Amino acid sequence: MKLLRVGPVGAERPALLDPDGATLRDLSQLVDDIDGALLADASALDRIRAAAGAGVLPPLDPAGLRIGPPLARVGKVVCIGLNYHDHAAETGAEPPAEPVVFLKAADTVVGPEDTVLVPRGSRKTDWEAELAVVIGRTARYLGDDEDALAHVAGYAVSHDVSEREFQIERGGTWDKGKNCETFNPLGPWLVTADEVPDPQALGLRLWVNGELKQDGSTADQIFPVAEVVRYLSRFMTLHPGDVINTGTPAGVAMGRPEPKPYLRPGDVVELEVEGLGRQRQQLKGA
Amino acid sequence: MKLLRVGPVGAERPALLDPDGATLRDLSQLVDDIDGALLADASALDRIRAAAGAGVLPPLDPAGLRIGPPLARVGKVVCIGLNYHDHAAETGAEPPAEPVVFLKAADTVVGPEDTVLVPRGSRKTDWEAELAVVIGRTARYLGDDEDALAHVAGYAVSHDVSEREFQIERGGTWDKGKNCETFNPLGPWLVTADEVPDPQALGLRLWVNGELKQDGSTADQIFPVAEVVRYLSRFMTLHPGDVINTGTPAGVAMGRPEPKPYLRPGDVVELEVEGLGRQRQQLKGA
Repeated sequence: MKLLRVGPVGAERPALLDPDGATLRDLSQLVDDIDGALLADASALDRIRAAAGAGVLPPLDPAGLRIGPPLARVGKVVCIGLNYHDHAAETGAEPPAEPVVFLKAADTVVGPEDTVLVPRGSRKTDWEAELAVVIGRTARYLGDDEDALAHVAGYAVSHDVSEREFQIERGGTWDKGKNCETFNPLGPWLVTADEVPDPQALGLRLWVNGELKQDGSTADQIFPVAEVVRYLSRFMTLHPGDVINTGTPAGVAMGRPEPKPYLRPGDVVELEVEGLGRQRQQLKGA
Repeated sequence: MKLLRVGPVGAERPALLDPDGATLRDLSQLVDDIDGALLADASALDRIRAAAGAGVLPPLDPAGLRIGPPLARVGKVVCIGLNYHDHAAETGAEPPAEPVVFLKAADTVVGPEDTVLVPRGSRKTDWEAELAVVIGRTARYLGDDEDALAHVAGYAVSHDVSEREFQIERGGTWDKGKNCETFNPLGPWLVTADEVPDPQALGLRLWVNGELKQDGSTADQIFPVAEVVRYLSRFMTLHPGDVINTGTPAGVAMGRPEPKPYLRPGDVVELEVEGLGRQRQQLKGA
């Protein structure tokens, strides 16, 4: 299923995208919202599936409807750095021996077409197209990769917007350049795991002002999704509604020759992950 | 006022500690909970103040009552590293030129007397007594220090438990050693800012198994509270209910000679910040 949330900021309602890829169905009479509690509730998901199959869900008029992030009450956003061979190479880094972990606050999450703000004083706002993993079951000290995938509720497109000067040149950890407001567009949909048979075979693409900048595949991930989930569960408890940004392929501004083409107000970023939909953000000054 | 939350995990009720320092008052008929929304609502805080002054709040029997974290629905936990001259010195680090920032997930927050779990495989679980700042008004791009303090709702004792091998020796950012479950005891109280006239004049002390290990003062902070809040607001938006752990003074296990006395199951940690109360945790294996 493709679950989403539509409506004004803070007042989104749960919805379903039909298999035709065009018709939106209102879920608000069936479930309160799409959040960790719903994802952990197999019977609630079954109710949605059954209602969708029975054709009884009312259609929603998509005209003028904002798409919000596909998940309410995001817990934490755990991010994996340097997780693609080609991206590690472009930054001049050795492939890491074990996953590089940092965090984004949940309050950075916005909808897939919401405005992204270039922070005041920023000269190095950069893009990162990513596959996001959404957790559906509490995960701690997982034993093997198969078990790890059983804790994944679904997948989504994620834009891990990054300010490189704040991230790298201002002291401390990467978090300083990863948590500016609006820095994590998520969605349009949360695609349930049953519709993503192989998370290691997904193309990712990102364009800036129509020019293709990133064109990678999750096949190039150094640590695949299952290993990432299992690994993280040794260092932190993952809860339903937590999100993992699994890293970005090559092609970011930081990896390019000078003058590096960092984002500026007015720029338009579009990105997609195969089967998970497409985002489009316009940049504005904060 | 000293605000707290008492009761079983996940079912805490809001309470007030009388100025006598002993009598607990039930606030549950006055407010739903103590969270960012309450802290941002001056009229709700005034209602509590008025009811306390009028002596109409029912007492709570403290016998057998668990104290939870003093804040529900914690947003994000932003942490400042190496923020005391004496602690920077003991770790061999130069005093940082600007605040070192990392994050803890809100799900690491537990009550001040809850069990702290030593992660599986941990050999370097360490203590850090800290002054926590609780945000009461949305803060972005703050202009000056006085304005910054106006965004602080109150203060609390915080234990920034840290696994040093995970933090420093496993690649990536410090977050890997800061986000294990139960790694952020908070409380017992949230002391409103009006009762803390000078946050830069508070003693902090921490004992392990009765032996004094940390004995510092916020006067030694490299970046004082107001500067930290103002600085952070340039890199992220701070929301009501966000918490800032402002760093720890000297005396952690990592700063001691070999064999360093890291925490083990069975150990008891007690800590206090002047005027903000005292915590006590027993360590157990995860």
